[in-house]
Amino acid sequence: MLPKKFLECLDREGIVAIGSSSAKGEVHLVNTWHRFVLVTEDERLLIPAGGMTRTEENVGENPRVELTLGSGEVMGEKAPGVGFLVVGKAEFLDHGEELEAIRAKCGFGSRVLVVTPESCTQTM
Amino acid sequence: MLPKKFLECLDREGIVAIGSSSAKGEVHLVNTWHRFVLVTEDERLLIPAGGMTRTEENVGENPRVELTLGSGEVMGEKAPGVGFLVVGKAEFLDHGEELEAIRAKCGFGSRVLVVTPESCTQTM
Repeated sequence: MLPKKFLECLDREGIVAIGSSSAKGEVHLVNTWHRFVLVTEDERLLIPAGGMTRTEENVGENPRVELTLGSGEVMGEKAPGVGFLVVGKAEFLDHGEELEAIRAKCGFGSRVLVVTPESCTQTM
Repeated sequence: MLPKKFLECLDREGIVAIGSSSAKGEVHLVNTWHRFVLVTEDERLLIPAGGMTRTEENVGENPRVELTLGSGEVMGEKAPGVGFLVVGKAEFLDHGEELEAIRAKCGFGSRVLVVTPESCTQTM
């Protein structure tokens, strides 16, 4: 499901925004760097969580999240620059192979944010 | 209110994520490029809107938005890389000096998204 250009973005420097909403419907965004995202073989996104306490609270109330990322260096249709929107379900795990994998990649993380994408759309 | 490093990020290439939520509390993210953000003298953020239809619908129901942006090239406390979270109120305008200003800067925009920040926090 994840397009090749999406994966190319993750190989460049850039910022991932992770949007969630509380039970009351209040939006919250948190961001991390492309280099901290691990794509599993079954195309889940693993992201180390140090803080992210409001995102974790929100995900406990409503697991639906949206993520955006992109790169000005990856070629778009006519010129360099692409961006993607991922819609998916998220959960935080404080143990298990996903946490071990993200700690091995990034060197930190008290929990791991696991996003299971339902769609991944090129938006720009 | 807007820190110097925030403005430095806008001068570098990068992506802005704009998060909103519907009356039902469903989060939605849309993104644009740093170069399309115009900071007014009174520190509002003007962003050209071509599509952004869901964001516009959401803002009509709940004007509270969160934005993230950052740059791996701007110096943080110990190493390069900073990110910011803006919390504010948003509205879409289809006429007026804000729309004219953003069209003059970017060359497009059927409407302009105007964000009035309530806070701007360095998050990484």
